[in-house]
Amino acid sequence: MRKALIGVMGPGDNASENAIQMGFELGSLIAKEGWVTLSGGRDKGVMGSVNKGAKSQNGLTLGIIPASDNSYTSDDVDIAIVTGMGSARNNINILSADALIVVAESIGSGTASEACLALKANKSIVLLSPDNTTQSFFENLGKDLTHTVQTPQKAITKVKELLS
Amino acid sequence: MRKALIGVMGPGDNASENAIQMGFELGSLIAKEGWVTLSGGRDKGVMGSVNKGAKSQNGLTLGIIPASDNSYTSDDVDIAIVTGMGSARNNINILSADALIVVAESIGSGTASEACLALKANKSIVLLSPDNTTQSFFENLGKDLTHTVQTPQKAITKVKELLS
Amino acid sequence: MRKALIGVMGPGDNASENAIQMGFELGSLIAKEGWVTLSGGRDKGVMGSVNKGAKSQNGLTLGIIPASDNSYTSDDVDIAIVTGMGSARNNINILSADALIVVAESIGSGTASEACLALKANKSIVLLSPDNTTQSFFENLGKDLTHTVQTPQKAITKVKELLS
Amino acid sequence: MRKALIGVMGPGDNASENAIQMGFELGSLIAKEGWVTLSGGRDKGVMGSVNKGAKSQNGLTLGIIPASDNSYTSDDVDIAIVTGMGSARNNINILSADALIVVAESIGSGTASEACLALKANKSIVLLSPDNTTQSFFENLGKDLTHTVQTPQKAITKVKELLS
Repeated sequence: MRKALIGVMGPGDNASENAIQMGFELGSLIAKEGWVTLSGGRDKGVMGSVNKGAKSQNGLTLGIIPASDNSYTSDDVDIAIVTGMGSARNNINILSADALIVVAESIGSGTASEACLALKANKSIVLLSPDNTTQSFFENLGKDLTHTVQTPQKAITKVKELLS
Repeated sequence: MRKALIGVMGPGDNASENAIQMGFELGSLIAKEGWVTLSGGRDKGVMGSVNKGAKSQNGLTLGIIPASDNSYTSDDVDIAIVTGMGSARNNINILSADALIVVAESIGSGTASEACLALKANKSIVLLSPDNTTQSFFENLGKDLTHTVQTPQKAITKVKELLS
Repeated sequence: MRKALIGVMGPGDNASENAIQMGFELGSLIAKEGWVTLSGGRDKGVMGSVNKGAKSQNGLTLGIIPASDNSYTSDDVDIAIVTGMGSARNNINILSADALIVVAESIGSGTASEACLALKANKSIVLLSPDNTTQSFFENLGKDLTHTVQTPQKAITKVKELLS
Repeated sequence: MRKALIGVMGPGDNASENAIQMGFELGSLIAKEGWVTLSGGRDKGVMGSVNKGAKSQNGLTLGIIPASDNSYTSDDVDIAIVTGMGSARNNINILSADALIVVAESIGSGTASEACLALKANKSIVLLSPDNTTQSFFENLGKDLTHTVQTPQKAITKVKELLS
């Protein structure tokens, strides 16, 4: 039976400490709900911490890898999809996720592209802790699809609402 | 910890009864080994039966979907990767699989493309029950990477050898 | 000998009259420089007008098509690349372009994803006529790579500078 | 106005002298017809020679590049589409081409995958100088879509027939 895939996008190299911490908490909460964590699959920034959080609760973790092999895939990824297509795989992330949480604190261009691609595909995004500019930017692109929250717990509550 | 993904490729619309039966047996054997079944994710032909076989043994099933949503995804797929890129997703199948079994009886052009892409990526293929032309064709493309077997059980034995 | 490909991204369905007019002017100026216009290839919004502008000066027009055939390709596209991969093709647009002009007035989520993907790939973007939020958003993502201008003519001047 | 794109697929590293020579002749004949040559864009094997042949007649050459930049793109390619998606770009080649010529002498796995993907997309292939096994293999996959010829000139004649 199909499992719910919850995409968590967030900054990699330049993630703030707080963003990384929120990633861990999100992964942990997603696992507790019995959902699968979907991420970019590398062991850095929010991508890294969300998988550690999920594994801390014995959750299942799925990574959609930009590279053409698993050389840089995190050990915390249970199932690695090797796309070999670089950032073009960002569109697979958003098409595959049943719900999307965007860790917007210290957001980078890769994460931002995923949020844009989600809106383009008419999918909702849960923006976690964006600054004012980021929130306004995404609300201008798609007001009805953009849901802003301030804590990981509230992100999960919103995801439940979107899935139901 | 990373799970082994075993790709099973085979004919869809024009699959023979025997090919479909071999698909079921493969899925069942893969699940018994504790491996994940990777397929194209639709409920037809070998794609369909391999997932039913895996689910009959409570295995985990992964589908890499060519469409841009899950409208045609088989109910026997646990984890659906929605690529929205048509047959270009065939390359993701072969890059992601730790081992590839190609059900070659009544082989179609989609399955054949995956076997070719695997050889191109320097990955081994286990050809199950090919006719003489098909076997010769793939051996000409890559003799060392092409392993021909006649039964699902022997395909699994060969996969074990390749994974070790 | 390799021709310079100038990508022009901009809103489609919801393009303002002024954005469409700027698209036409950009296409015309690009053609006068002897460059090739690269766009999404459909006949609507800025995508549509940039190709009409280029053809008005006998420029060569290239369209990178999301669909799997040319049913919706503009008649003003000389060379159509049929990707069949939906919005994942946005990454091809930005990797292929030698310079990128983003018509940011009435910007939509598809165009915004391309600007983000460009920054992710470490490529410069020329933002034409953004509102304050849009300009700030992209400057936050990549200050050194984001160049804001107010007229098509100034966009071309900036492109020349970037190509040299 | 849309230009006809003629895809020429053929072996790269292991191309025979005769295959390379046929590639040059095909490029030259395609250019004389006023068509655009579509290839994989690298300067080796048939990919390399078809572009040299086209340029010898001042034809326009289009390369669909697997890499994420133009480091290895042939200087004989006028328009380079940078996909960054490895062999997944093979499907773009066949979707974009209005007709496909497969140089089958000393065929490799990449070329073979493109011929399979073409048949999967219900597109005709013109097989140039295949051995018996290769011809039989593709005729088994799609008899009505597989057209075998022995010379570049006959390949062009068949393409004209298919385009009309």
